[in-house]
Amino acid sequence: MPDIRKDALSNTWVIIAPERAARPQTKKKKKAEPPMPHCPFCEGEDAKSDIVPYATCAATFDEHGNWITRILTNKFPALKPSEQYKEQDFEHIYHQMAGVGGHEILIESPKHKHFEWATMPKKQLITVFKNYQCRYTYWRKDSRIAYLSIFRNHGKVAGASVKHPHSQMIATPLVPPRVEAEMKEMKKHKQKTNKCLLCHMVKFEKKTKERVIMENDDFLAFSNFAPRFPYETMVVPKKHRDTFEDISEKEMASLAEFMSTLMAKFDKLLDDPPFNLIFHVSPIQMRGIDYFHWHIEIIFRLSQPAGFEWGSGIYINSVPPEKAAEELRKV
Amino acid sequence: MPDIRKDALSNTWVIIAPERAARPQTKKKKKAEPPMPHCPFCEGEDAKSDIVPYATCAATFDEHGNWITRILTNKFPALKPSEQYKEQDFEHIYHQMAGVGGHEILIESPKHKHFEWATMPKKQLITVFKNYQCRYTYWRKDSRIAYLSIFRNHGKVAGASVKHPHSQMIATPLVPPRVEAEMKEMKKHKQKTNKCLLCHMVKFEKKTKERVIMENDDFLAFSNFAPRFPYETMVVPKKHRDTFEDISEKEMASLAEFMSTLMAKFDKLLDDPPFNLIFHVSPIQMRGIDYFHWHIEIIFRLSQPAGFEWGSGIYINSVPPEKAAEELRKV
Repeated sequence: MPDIRKDALSNTWVIIAPERAARPQTKKKKKAEPPMPHCPFCEGEDAKSDIVPYATCAATFDEHGNWITRILTNKFPALKPSEQYKEQDFEHIYHQMAGVGGHEILIESPKHKHFEWATMPKKQLITVFKNYQCRYTYWRKDSRIAYLSIFRNHGKVAGASVKHPHSQMIATPLVPPRVEAEMKEMKKHKQKTNKCLLCHMVKFEKKTKERVIMENDDFLAFSNFAPRFPYETMVVPKKHRDTFEDISEKEMASLAEFMSTLMAKFDKLLDDPPFNLIFHVSPIQMRGIDYFHWHIEIIFRLSQPAGFEWGSGIYINSVPPEKAAEELRKV
Repeated sequence: MPDIRKDALSNTWVIIAPERAARPQTKKKKKAEPPMPHCPFCEGEDAKSDIVPYATCAATFDEHGNWITRILTNKFPALKPSEQYKEQDFEHIYHQMAGVGGHEILIESPKHKHFEWATMPKKQLITVFKNYQCRYTYWRKDSRIAYLSIFRNHGKVAGASVKHPHSQMIATPLVPPRVEAEMKEMKKHKQKTNKCLLCHMVKFEKKTKERVIMENDDFLAFSNFAPRFPYETMVVPKKHRDTFEDISEKEMASLAEFMSTLMAKFDKLLDDPPFNLIFHVSPIQMRGIDYFHWHIEIIFRLSQPAGFEWGSGIYINSVPPEKAAEELRKV
């Protein structure tokens, strides 16, 4: 039986329609990506030329002076730090801002084969997280910037043009609407129940168990109650904090361990699926707000939103999250 | 220079970044779809068995009793008319409704080759529009239903599993968030300026001209000021009306003519591009609201939203709408 669910965080509506899973086109995709002959992110390649000139922690090095991670400006940037902040309005209809911001790439390892967090050494993954913290700190100093989006695309269908392990960071002069929607819902929940929405959700999920995928001392992974995409997953820290920037070295080690196991589960069940992994934190100029709880969203690109989704903003998902979690627990 | 724009109707933010057009993966796709050996929608195939039993205007026939258009229930329905309306709340966190609604397919023609409105006889296209009107009228009688989404997917990447000309209709017990956002913006604009937002927009676009693609006596097509996707297009009726259900036979003939020419332009410039075409009307239980103005949205699926878009709700588009409109005018 189909049912309709509302996502508590983003207020998005989703139709859970398991019978649609039988459709011919929703079969799982096999990996068929040809190996890339030339990888622009591999060790040595343009090793110095592209490193962002304005960045702190532009690169980290090992004891021999070789780079472990490095940050490049995106060759095709969506936004630029050189722009002046400027806004315009046309007859109260159209609204426009200058494209001020930044678009950076973090090369997560010199090793091409570390393209998955599941197989990357934990120490390397911790360095990746430290780089994220460093970029939050860096962009927070720029008063024109309201938010830093950190995300990771994997697989061509998910928008990754290069397989070499990398994350992207986009600094925008506005708070993204999805984060704004989450802020609104978290604030409302706090006012209504005096509880943090995500702390409450963690408690509820641990009680009902059916959507829990895995947990350790510091983190819980569960299938979203109202997932836009099959196998959509939330990773929530148990400690209430608004931003990733403030987590400790110990928590980073715990997260590295956790993400490594979790990503291996997806890889095994879904056969190297294309995905987007997204960090949601409080807006950088609002660090410390008490109602926000940082988290990670992982969406798999095994299905294609079509006219209904784009036109309505409602998503049809053929895999109930309870089934997704059960399958993932068994891996 | 990149700039950031807000869509006046949906309040969606978009980054216009022309420099990203140089990226290797944004090249136009060539058509490579293999011909379908068996088409389930072709004339004769299951001609009677699937026709929706509960539908008025389930099929239209010619003078020899052969069907011209027919309506089927989707074999893999997202929602079902048999469900009872029911809502549930879990600790103020999760919200769930029964999957009540309908999911129908309109076979637009018995002829497989009519898969594009550009090549479909105008008379046939008018019959398609009459079917839409009929379905709005039908679903409006069901008090559990708040909205009927009518849309058309073309091409595999856009979610079409069958090439045979068809539209889909999904009746939902809630007003889609995108329509709700449009209602909110249109209402706000009316209160602030005493003008209909879309009437105002048509006037503004005709004055500035740079985003206009084409017009006739009754309709204007222009590139969206803040398009989520390259070549995203708005088709707006010049006569202010909240719903498609009320347009006259003369206007339908005019729209058939207009859409035929417009779709041919896209086809020629973008080489049979995958697209979603969506009708936005006022919620069916609210027919007659004065601030809403019905319209058609067309989005092309030549690029892939990735982690940034899904995580932020902000879209990066490498084709400025002014450039898109100029190219389309020249075709």
